[in-house]
Amino acid sequence: MKATIYDVAREAGVSIAAVSQVMNGKGKISEERRTEILKVMEKLNYQPSVIASALTGKKTYTLGLLVPDISNPFFAEIARAVEDQGHSLGYSLVICSTDNKDERVERYLSLLQQKSVDGMIIGTGMDNKDMLTPLMDRAIPIVMIAREMPDLAVHTVVVDDFVGGTMAAKHLLDLGHTRLAILAEHAKVISSRERVKGFMATLSEIGIKLSEDHVRNCRYTVEDGKREALELLELPAAERPTALFCCNDMLAIGALQAAKQLKLRVPEDISVIGFDNTILASVTDPPLTTIAQPIEPMGKKVVDLLILELKKKSPAKQRVVMLPELIVRQSTAAPSKV
Amino acid sequence: MKATIYDVAREAGVSIAAVSQVMNGKGKISEERRTEILKVMEKLNYQPSVIASALTGKKTYTLGLLVPDISNPFFAEIARAVEDQGHSLGYSLVICSTDNKDERVERYLSLLQQKSVDGMIIGTGMDNKDMLTPLMDRAIPIVMIAREMPDLAVHTVVVDDFVGGTMAAKHLLDLGHTRLAILAEHAKVISSRERVKGFMATLSEIGIKLSEDHVRNCRYTVEDGKREALELLELPAAERPTALFCCNDMLAIGALQAAKQLKLRVPEDISVIGFDNTILASVTDPPLTTIAQPIEPMGKKVVDLLILELKKKSPAKQRVVMLPELIVRQSTAAPSKV
Repeated sequence: MKATIYDVAREAGVSIAAVSQVMNGKGKISEERRTEILKVMEKLNYQPSVIASALTGKKTYTLGLLVPDISNPFFAEIARAVEDQGHSLGYSLVICSTDNKDERVERYLSLLQQKSVDGMIIGTGMDNKDMLTPLMDRAIPIVMIAREMPDLAVHTVVVDDFVGGTMAAKHLLDLGHTRLAILAEHAKVISSRERVKGFMATLSEIGIKLSEDHVRNCRYTVEDGKREALELLELPAAERPTALFCCNDMLAIGALQAAKQLKLRVPEDISVIGFDNTILASVTDPPLTTIAQPIEPMGKKVVDLLILELKKKSPAKQRVVMLPELIVRQSTAAPSKV
Repeated sequence: MKATIYDVAREAGVSIAAVSQVMNGKGKISEERRTEILKVMEKLNYQPSVIASALTGKKTYTLGLLVPDISNPFFAEIARAVEDQGHSLGYSLVICSTDNKDERVERYLSLLQQKSVDGMIIGTGMDNKDMLTPLMDRAIPIVMIAREMPDLAVHTVVVDDFVGGTMAAKHLLDLGHTRLAILAEHAKVISSRERVKGFMATLSEIGIKLSEDHVRNCRYTVEDGKREALELLELPAAERPTALFCCNDMLAIGALQAAKQLKLRVPEDISVIGFDNTILASVTDPPLTTIAQPIEPMGKKVVDLLILELKKKSPAKQRVVMLPELIVRQSTAAPSKV
């Protein structure tokens, strides 16, 4: 039987007026109480035909999320984590995917602003922070996830990319590799740049320096990773790397495909390590050794910080740096002695 | 050097006023011309600080997309295809993910309506079409993708799920399997139901009938697929299926994981076939035989139909049924003789 507003009020132990206030986004109801009532509504599968009215108050209870490519499972999984946490706190989420193009970033920033989101979560890079000025001027709170703008005073949730790079390098060095190469994302992507830096710094500690030719900048797609990996793996035997550090799992999959095409065995002939630990990493052939980002905690944290901002209870701006973790699967091994 | 409005006008061979009209969404400019000018803007990476003004016209040039779970690569890839096609025609896209919950479907439908999208693409199931009445009343065009509401007069783009089911069955029968089982999505998901029907119909032609116990309804997640597959694969040898038809690639991955946990070899001990052909299918171990949905053409088509609606040039409501395709990889083979 369909739940009514009476059922919700009874179950939540509040008045019908309180439930109504939650739906109308009005009244002096506390955020905690509001969240509880929303939970009861969901538990009872309460479907008021007027739920739209919950969105007519001054606050819209809507958050915006900007990602560079929703078909990259890393960002799809981030979006899912953000949606879940937002929902549990009574917020809806609209997602926009920018294809990493500045023109689309600007268009979508304007769009979300026009659509009156309460706050915005930005997971896409941008060349210059001026794009954000219109939002800041209108006092729309912004937080960033997985990307950062160092000279922008906003809450930011990232993984420690530099440390992730060092973890990857240490793992490959421990296995005995000395001929290494990197598939990086475009140099303007700070997170990728930091991963490369961490990787190179660890190598240079024991005197290994990668030639420019062994650090490839790609777009972030499987196809790009494959093309660059093919070039690296077709180098003369003396120069050919025995291990590839890929700055995301998509690029690592490209590398696996390149190896397969050249009939090289992974990990016997070539070790491959990725970054992100999306669903892809656990299903590849062989399963991918990768540097895991804590996707769920990151998504949860960024929503919590944004909502603190919305409530004006926000502490000083935080840069929350979460630790990555090396997940060893079967795509890395000691180089074979030839 | 940054492109100016003059550069755009020159390159497009139009007046500055025409470019301005495109940005303001006003004037009598033709859609074809408008699209051309938008292409030039992107080509020149033109970034007017007033691009927001493109969104202040009567039309918002924004489309909404509702999907059940953005972390399912099938829907993430649909979203990507829709965004690309929308963008090439000058439309922005906002995406909402409903977690397959009716309560969230309703909330997001209201939300997108409030946010004044020009039209809405729905890829999520819903229990009753009344949820859509408010949109229909306000004459907001709706099209559906990958899901259908049979008694609703809207353009719909789907794959032929029934035929997809028959393709999966024929493939497994041709290989010599006779003990089969199905991991299906929830019975309320019509597309999954049709896949099951097609599969069963083909089996019954040669007198094979599946017991209820061999048709498992799951949620659509890897974990659910794994749990149900474990139960099936732990049946006594005489009842244990030699082949599993999984109604999406996520469930198939669950099945692969279950097989691995039980130390069963795929495909020697158990064949697994999926549905969708997302990025996942090509990277699993072993690579997944699956029924491919033409994701890009579907995304493109649904946007084209929606925009015809917006221009009121729409023909009678169409149900566009695209043909699926069997993609044979390495997760299916003849059953081993014991």
